[in-house]
Amino acid sequence: MTATPLGPILVINPNSSEMVTEGLRAALAGFALDRGPAIECVTIPHGPPGVVTQREVDEASLNVADVIAARPDASAYVIACYSQPGLDLGRSITPKPVYGIQDAGALSALALADTFGVIAVAETSIPRHLRTLRRLGIDNRLAGEVALEGNISVADSGHGEESYAQLLKAATRLKAMGAGAIVLGCAGMSGHCQSLQRELGIAVIDPTQAAVAMALGKLLSGRA
Amino acid sequence: MTATPLGPILVINPNSSEMVTEGLRAALAGFALDRGPAIECVTIPHGPPGVVTQREVDEASLNVADVIAARPDASAYVIACYSQPGLDLGRSITPKPVYGIQDAGALSALALADTFGVIAVAETSIPRHLRTLRRLGIDNRLAGEVALEGNISVADSGHGEESYAQLLKAATRLKAMGAGAIVLGCAGMSGHCQSLQRELGIAVIDPTQAAVAMALGKLLSGRA
Amino acid sequence: MTATPLGPILVINPNSSEMVTEGLRAALAGFALDRGPAIECVTIPHGPPGVVTQREVDEASLNVADVIAARPDASAYVIACYSQPGLDLGRSITPKPVYGIQDAGALSALALADTFGVIAVAETSIPRHLRTLRRLGIDNRLAGEVALEGNISVADSGHGEESYAQLLKAATRLKAMGAGAIVLGCAGMSGHCQSLQRELGIAVIDPTQAAVAMALGKLLSGRA
Amino acid sequence: MTATPLGPILVINPNSSEMVTEGLRAALAGFALDRGPAIECVTIPHGPPGVVTQREVDEASLNVADVIAARPDASAYVIACYSQPGLDLGRSITPKPVYGIQDAGALSALALADTFGVIAVAETSIPRHLRTLRRLGIDNRLAGEVALEGNISVADSGHGEESYAQLLKAATRLKAMGAGAIVLGCAGMSGHCQSLQRELGIAVIDPTQAAVAMALGKLLSGRA
Amino acid sequence: MTATPLGPILVINPNSSEMVTEGLRAALAGFALDRGPAIECVTIPHGPPGVVTQREVDEASLNVADVIAARPDASAYVIACYSQPGLDLGRSITPKPVYGIQDAGALSALALADTFGVIAVAETSIPRHLRTLRRLGIDNRLAGEVALEGNISVADSGHGEESYAQLLKAATRLKAMGAGAIVLGCAGMSGHCQSLQRELGIAVIDPTQAAVAMALGKLLSGRA
Amino acid sequence: MTATPLGPILVINPNSSEMVTEGLRAALAGFALDRGPAIECVTIPHGPPGVVTQREVDEASLNVADVIAARPDASAYVIACYSQPGLDLGRSITPKPVYGIQDAGALSALALADTFGVIAVAETSIPRHLRTLRRLGIDNRLAGEVALEGNISVADSGHGEESYAQLLKAATRLKAMGAGAIVLGCAGMSGHCQSLQRELGIAVIDPTQAAVAMALGKLLSGRA
Repeated sequence: MTATPLGPILVINPNSSEMVTEGLRAALAGFALDRGPAIECVTIPHGPPGVVTQREVDEASLNVADVIAARPDASAYVIACYSQPGLDLGRSITPKPVYGIQDAGALSALALADTFGVIAVAETSIPRHLRTLRRLGIDNRLAGEVALEGNISVADSGHGEESYAQLLKAATRLKAMGAGAIVLGCAGMSGHCQSLQRELGIAVIDPTQAAVAMALGKLLSGRA
Repeated sequence: MTATPLGPILVINPNSSEMVTEGLRAALAGFALDRGPAIECVTIPHGPPGVVTQREVDEASLNVADVIAARPDASAYVIACYSQPGLDLGRSITPKPVYGIQDAGALSALALADTFGVIAVAETSIPRHLRTLRRLGIDNRLAGEVALEGNISVADSGHGEESYAQLLKAATRLKAMGAGAIVLGCAGMSGHCQSLQRELGIAVIDPTQAAVAMALGKLLSGRA
Repeated sequence: MTATPLGPILVINPNSSEMVTEGLRAALAGFALDRGPAIECVTIPHGPPGVVTQREVDEASLNVADVIAARPDASAYVIACYSQPGLDLGRSITPKPVYGIQDAGALSALALADTFGVIAVAETSIPRHLRTLRRLGIDNRLAGEVALEGNISVADSGHGEESYAQLLKAATRLKAMGAGAIVLGCAGMSGHCQSLQRELGIAVIDPTQAAVAMALGKLLSGRA
Repeated sequence: MTATPLGPILVINPNSSEMVTEGLRAALAGFALDRGPAIECVTIPHGPPGVVTQREVDEASLNVADVIAARPDASAYVIACYSQPGLDLGRSITPKPVYGIQDAGALSALALADTFGVIAVAETSIPRHLRTLRRLGIDNRLAGEVALEGNISVADSGHGEESYAQLLKAATRLKAMGAGAIVLGCAGMSGHCQSLQRELGIAVIDPTQAAVAMALGKLLSGRA
Repeated sequence: MTATPLGPILVINPNSSEMVTEGLRAALAGFALDRGPAIECVTIPHGPPGVVTQREVDEASLNVADVIAARPDASAYVIACYSQPGLDLGRSITPKPVYGIQDAGALSALALADTFGVIAVAETSIPRHLRTLRRLGIDNRLAGEVALEGNISVADSGHGEESYAQLLKAATRLKAMGAGAIVLGCAGMSGHCQSLQRELGIAVIDPTQAAVAMALGKLLSGRA
Repeated sequence: MTATPLGPILVINPNSSEMVTEGLRAALAGFALDRGPAIECVTIPHGPPGVVTQREVDEASLNVADVIAARPDASAYVIACYSQPGLDLGRSITPKPVYGIQDAGALSALALADTFGVIAVAETSIPRHLRTLRRLGIDNRLAGEVALEGNISVADSGHGEESYAQLLKAATRLKAMGAGAIVLGCAGMSGHCQSLQRELGIAVIDPTQAAVAMALGKLLSGRA
């Protein structure tokens, strides 16, 4: 395992928004190592503009699995959507590490704080996220989940003053609800992560960065 | 934050064994990035040879906090002992990220599998580990924790055939108990991580590597 | 609501096995009421022979949702597969009751006993079932889940001496593990339900019957 | 079991109010099947007008058990009081199914929604109900329990504009607290079930109907 | 409150066995203080010889409540039966402290150890005890509950070599199952408490003593 | 064990405030028995004036353990600080009972009520207390924890009108949050316990009294 170069960490954006994928590339730029695995972000062009409805989640499962199956050269996979479409399916078709960003984000928050809060893009996603937390077994550590107001799209959630103002509002509420750390509940929000953390004064976790860091750690572990 | 170079990730071995610290350096060698933060492993020379008894844990708390206080140049701290001495204290004296390897290791395992098992160096540490899992809130995801047989020391637990045989025996039992991933329950076991994973066929998590990966992700996040 | 006749309870078998659907019809024959809703069992011909792998589950989700969308005349839907493909999706596209048989079966068992055990067709389905129990929030009431031995198919699991012997063996183990009631962990096992209950001496729940009874109750409730 | 006709499902109202029992008969009228078991609702004439205090609950336990013992011809028993007097005792004296309506109602709600809310007749019953949910193991799925205002009696809780207005008020609060379904926390509220469900837009569960549906399913299961 | 002498702590044995009540008196002899409340143990002559079946528990509820109502001079009440008949009822009729020995025993064990095990007189009581632990909310801290073998009666469980041998056997099993402390699951076992603790090497809790100590503490608190 | 006189119950105040220790002596005056063990309260002169910060907790651990080690004549130890410094360490160096007052107080509250609330001296202690409740496994029974307003010190928290007014305010909020009993979250608050209980109408637990009562019960148990 030491000699062969590691294949890339494949970060899969299950929606068709290149703008979101660009945001992921920007968020992950700092993670590229000279001698480490490449970090490759891919869009699923035939996916929906954002994975919001349950149908979009279920269709995305199969799309994500197709990408995983088509890229046996990758050494790890990150499903860059907070609803984690294809997580179980991906794990059933490859023995390599497959990370979902909700799991990775929430678990990373718990490595820094007793409780966490989540900012969702849309109210309708919250029950789905809660089901995932229950199946993961850490729902009792959730201080709360709050949605952005004002119909902000996945693609817009990481850019511009309007979405930042809404993120700050949601995060401030979550902090008051007892959250010791904040998880951004959408792959598209990365752009605001640092400003938000500075302004709030508690850790803000971008879940894609959290998942890629975990993947990197797992792969580098083999290089030691 | 983008202009100033990041201070090192300080990996603190609370015991006095340079051999264990050397093992940490070896385990983390692959994590050093050209443009990323340095990873610096330090020994606490006046610590005990291994942190095993509760007195050793409680004394180590203050020692670890002294190191954290003395190193304001670091950008993150990893307490490289599975009993996490000084975790609460460290967090109370610095706003920077402080990771404990039990938390980081177990949480990282849950990002890959539904349940995990832990290999302890000594039977006597197990109740203490369980208390920590309960306070973290994920004890219900533990398949089991099993101690090495044969009085293997912290320093020896990552080297040699005898300790490897015992690790494999414990890990095999844990897999049969339903563990979907294995966490090495001691900072000293790193050396056997890869071989064990290959032989078992399920993920084996070195908790120090897991914590450093999380720290790296948190810090790189600011560079994006 | 009192005047209009109730549309049928649509029982959806997501696999292509007419033999399984016939088994469902037989199991539900006693549930047809003169003035109640019809109980209609349908096969998904382009589904797999049995829903066992995760890919089969994820593909079945979309198939099941298509059937639900195509049958707005139905008054309630039962997803007759223990992995409940399409449960969330179905609920997102119709306001009418949609039941999954794992949920209905396990919850019905808890109405009769403190703890329950589950018989799975295949070992590989067990982790998936456990994830569903965790998200439902009743995993702490599970005495255990045990798979049939001897590679018995979904279609064969409810007929013949060989499968009965395996069911009895599994159920006996579960009873010894403390199960106060047994849930058949597959829609295809109905045929053995009564014999098994008589021989074991504790309640045996056929999950499709449990779900149809719940649906019937919910619909009849409106007729009162 | 197939040849012998099934004895009735005995629905036991442990209070002395014939008006409540009449309400049960009305609520269950739609459940009578031509070839199914009869549904027989009985009053306990020497019971209290409503089972509200703990003494009334404890005395009702023995009364309910006497009825069960006196009616070996029944094929299943439903204890039609939300405090479920005699549930454990009933189960200890007959091997036939004995259902409590709190258990059946709450479990049926969870077959339709992630969380549920409960409407209690009186504030004083709420701690008792919570103890029962904890022993059932599903208290973490409760969004909340809210009592009717205005001293409405058990007998009046299912009739008239005043009680309907209070039910609607309570249910609306519970929905705002996150309840995905509502359980009527008293056997006497049946009369308002349908109107409430139509006005609220989420499932409203009459617990006696839920329990009888489960009993029916269990018995019909043997006829298949 | 300081001037008036405190009424007795009334320890209620709900069975008719004077031998058991004598055992309680012996077990509590050391708790009588010169200036503290008297400790008075009473038998319920019309109770059953031992409270074992559910009917005995439910009938005992009313008997115990009658005693509480008849003794307003007492300052606290201890229900000296592990099934705690009348606990809720007693609390509903007096504002004074009412203790159940299962609750007091198990909670006292948790003040000394991470987990506890329980020795039951009879196998049939175990499910009832588990329901009580779940409603108390500490079932996840139970290492196990094991019944005495050989049909030992409540009255005999605290005397003689045969019952001691069975207690030791059960306790030894519980210790091997991980119990950090043992709770005697019957008011009649007191006589063996000290020998058992000495032989086992871990804390053995007599639940009546635990409850009386709590009552004493609550009452003395007012004298300070 | 019957012949030798019992050594004292050593109540250890880990802060340097003689005023707090005097308060403990007053609170425990009623617990001294003619023939029972003495109750001896000691101050740690080199401790901090109050144990509030995490550093004070961690340093107190070692101080408390030194006292335990220096007093082998004691028969039980009570750590009279709500943060329980040295609980694990104390238990690792003596086989005798070691009680922490948070554990003892909260567990004693659960012997009287379904849920409890806690009054903290300072906001900053609350997260630490919650971690302890989680590790004890009863956090789900906590109605809430509320801190005193107005910067009241540990030493002042049990004396004077100002602190009483703040205690009453906090307790009233907790009762409204559903607390069935109140635990005083600091060893220094004893002085107000009785007045508060009388004014609130629900049980108020002084945790040091609760712990000493448990210790007394455990020791007297051997005298029976």
